[in-house]
Amino acid sequence: MPSYTAPVEDMMFLFKKLRDNKNYNELEKYKEVSPDLVKDILEEAAKINQNLILPLAKIGDENPAVLENGVVRTPPGYKEAYQKYIKDGWTSLSCDPKYGGQGMPKTVSAFFDEMLSSASLSFKLYSELSIGAYNCINHHASDEIKNKYLPKIVEGKWSGTMCLTEPICGTDLGLLKTKAEKQSDGTYKISGQKIFITSGDQDLTENIIHLVIARATDSPAGTKGISLFLVPKFKVNEDGAVGSRNGISTGSIESKMGIKGSATCVLNFDKATGYLIGKKDKGLNAMFTMMNLERIVVGIQGLGISEIAYQNSLAYAKERKQGKTNNTKSTNGADFIIEHADIRRSLLNMKSIIEGERALCFWLSQQTEVSLNHPDEKIRQEASDFVSLMTPVVKSLFTDLGMEITNDAMQIHGGYGYTKDQGIEQLFRDNRITPIYEGTNSVQAADLVFRKLSNKNGNIINRFLDLIKSETNLNNEKIKPFTDDFTYYLNILTKFSEWINEKAKTDRDDVSAAANDYLKTLGFVSVAYAWIKVLSVSFKDYNENKNFYDDKINTAKFYFAKVLPRAEQHYKSAISGSSNIMNFKFN
Amino acid sequence: MPSYTAPVEDMMFLFKKLRDNKNYNELEKYKEVSPDLVKDILEEAAKINQNLILPLAKIGDENPAVLENGVVRTPPGYKEAYQKYIKDGWTSLSCDPKYGGQGMPKTVSAFFDEMLSSASLSFKLYSELSIGAYNCINHHASDEIKNKYLPKIVEGKWSGTMCLTEPICGTDLGLLKTKAEKQSDGTYKISGQKIFITSGDQDLTENIIHLVIARATDSPAGTKGISLFLVPKFKVNEDGAVGSRNGISTGSIESKMGIKGSATCVLNFDKATGYLIGKKDKGLNAMFTMMNLERIVVGIQGLGISEIAYQNSLAYAKERKQGKTNNTKSTNGADFIIEHADIRRSLLNMKSIIEGERALCFWLSQQTEVSLNHPDEKIRQEASDFVSLMTPVVKSLFTDLGMEITNDAMQIHGGYGYTKDQGIEQLFRDNRITPIYEGTNSVQAADLVFRKLSNKNGNIINRFLDLIKSETNLNNEKIKPFTDDFTYYLNILTKFSEWINEKAKTDRDDVSAAANDYLKTLGFVSVAYAWIKVLSVSFKDYNENKNFYDDKINTAKFYFAKVLPRAEQHYKSAISGSSNIMNFKFN
Repeated sequence: MPSYTAPVEDMMFLFKKLRDNKNYNELEKYKEVSPDLVKDILEEAAKINQNLILPLAKIGDENPAVLENGVVRTPPGYKEAYQKYIKDGWTSLSCDPKYGGQGMPKTVSAFFDEMLSSASLSFKLYSELSIGAYNCINHHASDEIKNKYLPKIVEGKWSGTMCLTEPICGTDLGLLKTKAEKQSDGTYKISGQKIFITSGDQDLTENIIHLVIARATDSPAGTKGISLFLVPKFKVNEDGAVGSRNGISTGSIESKMGIKGSATCVLNFDKATGYLIGKKDKGLNAMFTMMNLERIVVGIQGLGISEIAYQNSLAYAKERKQGKTNNTKSTNGADFIIEHADIRRSLLNMKSIIEGERALCFWLSQQTEVSLNHPDEKIRQEASDFVSLMTPVVKSLFTDLGMEITNDAMQIHGGYGYTKDQGIEQLFRDNRITPIYEGTNSVQAADLVFRKLSNKNGNIINRFLDLIKSETNLNNEKIKPFTDDFTYYLNILTKFSEWINEKAKTDRDDVSAAANDYLKTLGFVSVAYAWIKVLSVSFKDYNENKNFYDDKINTAKFYFAKVLPRAEQHYKSAISGSSNIMNFKFN
Repeated sequence: MPSYTAPVEDMMFLFKKLRDNKNYNELEKYKEVSPDLVKDILEEAAKINQNLILPLAKIGDENPAVLENGVVRTPPGYKEAYQKYIKDGWTSLSCDPKYGGQGMPKTVSAFFDEMLSSASLSFKLYSELSIGAYNCINHHASDEIKNKYLPKIVEGKWSGTMCLTEPICGTDLGLLKTKAEKQSDGTYKISGQKIFITSGDQDLTENIIHLVIARATDSPAGTKGISLFLVPKFKVNEDGAVGSRNGISTGSIESKMGIKGSATCVLNFDKATGYLIGKKDKGLNAMFTMMNLERIVVGIQGLGISEIAYQNSLAYAKERKQGKTNNTKSTNGADFIIEHADIRRSLLNMKSIIEGERALCFWLSQQTEVSLNHPDEKIRQEASDFVSLMTPVVKSLFTDLGMEITNDAMQIHGGYGYTKDQGIEQLFRDNRITPIYEGTNSVQAADLVFRKLSNKNGNIINRFLDLIKSETNLNNEKIKPFTDDFTYYLNILTKFSEWINEKAKTDRDDVSAAANDYLKTLGFVSVAYAWIKVLSVSFKDYNENKNFYDDKINTAKFYFAKVLPRAEQHYKSAISGSSNIMNFKFN
């Protein structure tokens, strides 16, 4: 089983030193969230993840969730762990105190998401969508529904799901067939089949609150006729008690490559009672609130799995001896593999990506809080645009690099990485879902280039580039070698953005074909931007903690020399255009 | 279950049009191997792989090999299929007619290796090492041993294994502990534990001939004291009949991420009778004959799995509808995903890599035959040097790109790629062993930069670059855009090679840290070299088969525009050096 130590020191560094968003720091409700409080929370979070949840990963892989007589049974130990987990209040961490939550900002809860992803993605998924459902209900439902459902969800006694996908409709929700018939009492009867529903059923909570998109019988075809409904597994009585069973059954659960502890369900809705959330035919808008926040969390999953893969690779490299290095002092026998240049290169590749991603994610958490909570609408909107821009980037880049990092972790472990004993191959399999769910990474890339670079508020990418330029224009001799490199790649990103902008007018296929490459270039440069912020503090406060900051500076050096150059290759590949691709005759 | 159609047309194209090595074409023994004969063989090969072997892949994944009461049981159906397989003579394809083989060159048997890798890697592994053992015995053993063992191995009644790895010795064979005690009759008693032994035991053959490296009790430590022994599972009587059981037992079999149908064994040797092969203390040299040919076959495994992944992705893209394209003509509903630019890009990425790899591999097969069979020692040596140079490249590049291609295949399948039903995720898991076994890809890269670029015969890489230059200096207007691009990247490879050559004298850590990048640059340029050969024929013989050659030309366009540029990024990343990497203090 892999070992795991939560990276509390790095998280606290970010929280103390990189909390640099003026608008975030103005938010009244977070003024009491002090570094001391956050440290207490993270240390408790570390304990539960390291001790209680980490062992559930292997248990879930070896004893997948099963469907028995129509009921999903989670792997052994999940029930007991879940009880402890909700008793300690972890589901409520980021929720509104009005409904029993602890009201912590994303700058804190994102760290918790990362730890939980490192410990066990399968276990995490049983509560993750509850938070998604919480956000969606909180933003779009009536007070009556909020008061009835949210306290139980926040407490973790009830869970939530997102029911979008159907057999012929994944990416393209306009194709959906699930229908909603309006009843005389204002409720709806929901009928249809939903597939790939994460935690669609389980034996951990007293009730499951499904958020289901469906088409009202009098609504138009396509995406403009989709409404959102709250459909509980058990109906809820007036007094809030769990009542009779609703018309929902679990048809089957998927046999998957990884995240085997998580139940991925086919749910059949047969005239199940549902309650409209938000406006009729505006269901996709409401769902997207949930989905966008969820996509960032999927990116964080990739980061969390990368972190545990790195930690175990480093530990193995320090204890495994094999071969002699170029500088061996051993007269007989082998050297530790951590002494080999190529292994060190691989480890630094992981470390420099992970720490850069974490810093970027922290920047994004601040923006997210501003976008949700700042009193000034203009500031809120600007932050929201940045969050929209970065959501597909974080989702795709972090999960793709999670595949690279878990892959390299297996490679460092050699044959022992491919066998089940050490649990390294499980990280690779578990992470493999992250580039697929919540919209495949290609869908994210298309979303980025066609909808996120500019919107009704103007040219967002140019505003982001201006922000980066203003924040990385630093007058510091020590940081200059980094900013010089950075400027080179920032120029490439700028040229690439202009190319996309132009091509979007004349040849959208060129843009489609370049979308994945563009996302990568933007992503690698954005991570570099986060590294510049880290470097700036590292040089400024160097004497406070020389070892820590030396580590940061040298890790950044690796990122700028070996990782960031990939940004250019993506650009070169993309601008060759798409006419050959589009004209190709596939036999 | 994935479907598969053997790419006989592309293989026959190569055999007819790219058999351009003058020295190969002079080989007397292959003059009768005509295109008609090869076509017959490939068509029969296609049948057995498509019909009999393909279904064994899924069966093996769902019913892994097991160890029961000390005996390995292969998955259901493997025994019957193996009997048919050897009855039809497939184990004997490339073996010497002297021992009952069919004497086919690698230009043919490599195609068969590819097909069998596409159909079922697990099934393939039960005979693959037999051919390795055959090669090793044929090159290094006495006539007595050859006459006694080879006919049965060629016939497939007996199989072979390679027993190298031990618990603390994988890459670094100098650490091995298995010992060999010489007996008065000239035989040895072999004792020790070997791990990760592919097909170490099975229920398919009457006997298993293990090739074991061990240290004679009077031999020195390190790699200079390693000898090679033939150790049969059952001793063989004077008359060639299978006799009593030798002192070998199967300790356990590995539970693995993939290739579950293949038994990966822990073998315990307890005073097992062994026979010295080749000279005492020269065991590694003998083993390397086998290992080098085997490494090329592992590269071909990556190619074969890539091919079936591509075929199924293409088929799925043609039947799955999702989303509207930029040029949609559909007024309602979605378009086939093959119409989406990004999916087309992904499919062409696969196709252009696969066909380029196959062409490069065909070039290498010709060189291999020249290196083994040409009467002129100088010509043989030159070909052998090229084979040595390309062995780590083909092994690593093809298997790493196999991961990329199976990964992209999953991505095209979306959620259906992650579930077990369609068998796509199995390709990803099965292929994942190929960058690890037969020497991890990092070991291959180190081997390339430190031992293959130049040797006692001089500067091999320069000779290879000269060969490429002379063969791609084509006077043809149509091919010029390709050769112009090619020259740009060839210059980068030349500069990179010079950098490696210089650094090898002054800073070997720089070379170690750059090894993986260098292998990739050399690999992408070599595949481009193979594409130039394909293009040359395509333009010359265009009117013979316009559709076929249009397909080749447009596929090549994609390779040069979108794949080859990666060669430069690897160069840029590498030349930043290693001092930061080597000085980094990992906590």
